[in-house]
Amino acid sequence: MSALTSSVKAMVFDTFGSVVDWRGSITRDLTRWGAENGYSCDWTALAVKWRSLYQPSMEKVRSGQREWTILDVLHRESLEQLLPEFGLEKMTEAQRQHVNKVWHRLDGWPDAVAGLTRLKSKYIIAPLSNGNVSLLTDIAKYTGLPWDLNLSTEVFRCYKPQPQSYLGVANILQLDPSEVMMCAAHNDDLAAARKVGLKTAFWPRPTEHGPEQKTNLSASENWDIVAKDIRDLATQMGV
Amino acid sequence: MSALTSSVKAMVFDTFGSVVDWRGSITRDLTRWGAENGYSCDWTALAVKWRSLYQPSMEKVRSGQREWTILDVLHRESLEQLLPEFGLEKMTEAQRQHVNKVWHRLDGWPDAVAGLTRLKSKYIIAPLSNGNVSLLTDIAKYTGLPWDLNLSTEVFRCYKPQPQSYLGVANILQLDPSEVMMCAAHNDDLAAARKVGLKTAFWPRPTEHGPEQKTNLSASENWDIVAKDIRDLATQMGV
Repeated sequence: MSALTSSVKAMVFDTFGSVVDWRGSITRDLTRWGAENGYSCDWTALAVKWRSLYQPSMEKVRSGQREWTILDVLHRESLEQLLPEFGLEKMTEAQRQHVNKVWHRLDGWPDAVAGLTRLKSKYIIAPLSNGNVSLLTDIAKYTGLPWDLNLSTEVFRCYKPQPQSYLGVANILQLDPSEVMMCAAHNDDLAAARKVGLKTAFWPRPTEHGPEQKTNLSASENWDIVAKDIRDLATQMGV
Repeated sequence: MSALTSSVKAMVFDTFGSVVDWRGSITRDLTRWGAENGYSCDWTALAVKWRSLYQPSMEKVRSGQREWTILDVLHRESLEQLLPEFGLEKMTEAQRQHVNKVWHRLDGWPDAVAGLTRLKSKYIIAPLSNGNVSLLTDIAKYTGLPWDLNLSTEVFRCYKPQPQSYLGVANILQLDPSEVMMCAAHNDDLAAARKVGLKTAFWPRPTEHGPEQKTNLSASENWDIVAKDIRDLATQMGV
């Protein structure tokens, strides 16, 4: 057993993009829903634009410009901003709520359930996502992610990449930061985790943002593990 | 489908005594450990006395007499108090830590895994225990409890039966209190949950405290569900 696989006790996973395919899932879900409910637009473009408002909306919370607000609320505000542009202003309140909750109905990438199930046999596994607890609970049930527990940054009342996100995990699990591995398809998330002492694992999701993706195609640092996907991560972690 | 089974979305479970058998588990675990490590005493008596210090130790936190402190720390302080009485003062620091963590190694009652697995197919299921997150995570892995998420009162920085324990669950899951069912073998826990609007389910654990048990042998109020055990609870909840 390597030093790494014997020292790591818990593995926490970025979720949007790394474990679940938000762009593909939103496109599939809302295309069907739109056809059934008389709305049509470029749902992929809506998903991408919606996601582009994600970081700016959290930044207002991180910077202290607004008080703690969960992601479901931020998503809803961003959606409201986009509805006119996509010709969707006629949606009722109930329909807006349903569409906003599409972030609770995301499918895992094809390797996610199989890889996580193997990892769970040896390590504590949990999401560490900016999605709120309710959102992460719904995704896990929807797509069958076998988490041991649900570590939303909501529990720590902050948003990644704020250091208390990563240190909060170590604290609540009573582990040293070096016993926790941050696992993600995003280099910036791993850089922030490494800075406060966590181990790191990367795999690319080259189509997270679509076929033209330019970012996070490969590891930007010598992360502790660089894998092909979550199945390969399990193999490299000895399970 | 009854009004009850269609309105309840999440079922949260008292853990010590209701889902896991702390008295039997501690006796089995420490009897074996004691034999291997040269310590002998009445381990059942130790478990019972240790548990009797549980409520008083939390009461200091609930009353504000001391600041927020997780249960592992309270357990350790109570253990220190008991060691001389049981002739165990010679234990090393590492041994004390191992013995204190016996609360992380509790077996489920025989119906727990089967009943919870059935309930998970329809409802969000989680512990709602005064055990800290790390303790509940370890128990779930140790005994195979298939929780969807891990709702320790540590997340809400309070101890049951404080109302924010129960209301915290509804809030974090974005549910109305009436959509959450508190499930326990303890009438007082259910009374506190009902007071703030939760649904309630009871089943007895007539040997939780041993063969002479006098408390919680039956339902003290007309709880929404009164079951024989967690398997029967699943049947009554339609799964």
